[in-house]
Amino acid sequence: MHGYFDYTASSMLRPEAAAALEEWTRRGGANPSSMHQRGRQARLALEDARRAVAELVGAAPRQVIFTSGATESNNTVMRAMAAVSPPRRLVLSGLEHHSIVATAEDLERAGTAVTRVRVASDGNVDARELAGVTAKSPCVVALGWANGETGHVTDVAEVVAACAAGTILLLDAAQAAGRIPVSLAPGIDALAMSAHKFGAPPGIGALVLSDRLRGQLHPLLTGGPQEWGLRAGTPNVAGAMATGAAAHAAAASMDCEAARLRGLRERLWTLVSQPSDDLLRITPPEGLPNTLTLAVAGASSDSLIAALDLAGFCVSAGSACAAGSPEPSHVVTALGIEPRYRSGILRISMGWATEPGAVDELAAALLVAIRRAKAAAAA
Amino acid sequence: MHGYFDYTASSMLRPEAAAALEEWTRRGGANPSSMHQRGRQARLALEDARRAVAELVGAAPRQVIFTSGATESNNTVMRAMAAVSPPRRLVLSGLEHHSIVATAEDLERAGTAVTRVRVASDGNVDARELAGVTAKSPCVVALGWANGETGHVTDVAEVVAACAAGTILLLDAAQAAGRIPVSLAPGIDALAMSAHKFGAPPGIGALVLSDRLRGQLHPLLTGGPQEWGLRAGTPNVAGAMATGAAAHAAAASMDCEAARLRGLRERLWTLVSQPSDDLLRITPPEGLPNTLTLAVAGASSDSLIAALDLAGFCVSAGSACAAGSPEPSHVVTALGIEPRYRSGILRISMGWATEPGAVDELAAALLVAIRRAKAAAAA
Repeated sequence: MHGYFDYTASSMLRPEAAAALEEWTRRGGANPSSMHQRGRQARLALEDARRAVAELVGAAPRQVIFTSGATESNNTVMRAMAAVSPPRRLVLSGLEHHSIVATAEDLERAGTAVTRVRVASDGNVDARELAGVTAKSPCVVALGWANGETGHVTDVAEVVAACAAGTILLLDAAQAAGRIPVSLAPGIDALAMSAHKFGAPPGIGALVLSDRLRGQLHPLLTGGPQEWGLRAGTPNVAGAMATGAAAHAAAASMDCEAARLRGLRERLWTLVSQPSDDLLRITPPEGLPNTLTLAVAGASSDSLIAALDLAGFCVSAGSACAAGSPEPSHVVTALGIEPRYRSGILRISMGWATEPGAVDELAAALLVAIRRAKAAAAA
Repeated sequence: MHGYFDYTASSMLRPEAAAALEEWTRRGGANPSSMHQRGRQARLALEDARRAVAELVGAAPRQVIFTSGATESNNTVMRAMAAVSPPRRLVLSGLEHHSIVATAEDLERAGTAVTRVRVASDGNVDARELAGVTAKSPCVVALGWANGETGHVTDVAEVVAACAAGTILLLDAAQAAGRIPVSLAPGIDALAMSAHKFGAPPGIGALVLSDRLRGQLHPLLTGGPQEWGLRAGTPNVAGAMATGAAAHAAAASMDCEAARLRGLRERLWTLVSQPSDDLLRITPPEGLPNTLTLAVAGASSDSLIAALDLAGFCVSAGSACAAGSPEPSHVVTALGIEPRYRSGILRISMGWATEPGAVDELAAALLVAIRRAKAAAAA
């Protein structure tokens, strides 16, 4: 995993999560709803995991619902709130993850009123516009806590202050939880999380709910009474145990890990930006500590990714959810990035296993790739 | 896992699935949508797994959508079909799993017309009634391929023949897939599966779709373009790899394993029914080979389960999804089981790791538990 710089697409599995998964494997599986000893053991493990996730985001365990990931969590809140009476207006920005953007489009086609508020170049929504929209009628506001493509971190306090009383505020914390402090603070009704972004396996995540929203949430998946009737289906105890272990490890190391990664990120930026003209830094210094999204004027992301891949480095161009698409990302468009940079965006993202030596080697390989891209463009 | 007899709630993890999980853990994770080498490796593993699941159910790989489990798969089809225009009537029986029953109730409250067809004591729906209902207006029929509480296996050919042309037929194969032959035969539009029922970890399953339904299915989870746009969210490659390995192992050993478990099941029934009066056998000989659901007149399931638990055996009373509920299960009620048996139902379910010696020991422990229960009832 030396050359892996795509933690935003998926973190490398944390050793603590691997150990939890091994422990589950040794136990061999049981349904936590079963009354017998193995079932009760599984139930205890599930509830331990729930406590660890709750602690990571400053919530009570009963506020944590395990889901299959942030996409399901976002869909759950957005679809439930689209069905309430009287209807709520859905508010988002142009910078959101596909699970918010596509769900908003889907609901809009079915009749939900949707408002897309402006974003500034710092990635934050226009607070005055947000205040105006939410004051006019009951709204659900769905925004990312941090942006997976650019590394921008939302000024959550400003968003909370801007939202009129009675607004339901859903924050997609998939890229923030486990990396920077995230909490279910007053004024926030829901947090969506994907555990594979902070070092657990894929296929599990959480929906963290304020008591206010919890009391009125219609489940997206109906069936058995699991998760207090808010999310049916046999609980994923294997994934939850790994998630709990990863959440615990992430919480325990967050401050020093953030400082370490911020240091590596700034070193990487210095190493590549000093010799290169025409690099645009998209992730600001105060952005996600693990992320450096940059753009190379006149280059193609795909060629840069392929060149780095050959050199043993895994990076990406933006959201893995849209990888391979020839269109510039909706986020790039919304941020108003100059056209000459739009096709040459690279997202470099680090995590718990990233070593300084690998950063230096990546910088060298990236400089070579940029030089070649420019030579090819000039030819 | 010597005394584990609750495979219907959750199978013990198959060694092949454990090995696949270990392989994924060694790789450490990557997003299969990423363009780099690790992403491409993850994509190949995901598609290998999809092929193995497709082979298990006689479908093409493009017809297999990975979901978080059968509950999500059932919800996906039922909710999508409730939103089509003109509306389709939803048809089910009184024997279905909670993910069908509760979803039908939820949709009914929202305006979907629902018909519950009669079931005979053999667990099969009344084919004439089914034919009549589906002939009258366009329907979605949602039935279990095998019943998790009783072990009854549906006469699928009869159901297919009874459904009028144009009917959408969803079969919940959570308890059937990997245990008995299941296939996406003509006339079947969707199969719902949970991988933890056949030896993979929890949190992953599949929705297998006919081309006809695939073309008109509205996704339940919207967001990224994963799974051909039919199920958004980062794919669960870890779970899929384990599912593929478990599907392959289950398919390869199905015939001899079914015969072996049927033998153990009949031996168990003989050992407990010969010395006991007043035992009712609910699972018929032609039911799921791994399941023996029986009822002890005048006894309480909870006491029997607790007594067996103390003796080191894990059994259950019915669906783990409803464990702990003081009400008799809706399945027990629908089957018309005599009242004196209703509170004393035990479900004993076996799987790949069940050994003959454990069956003999369970029989002995169950006889002791039954004698004590009768003595307590008589006192």
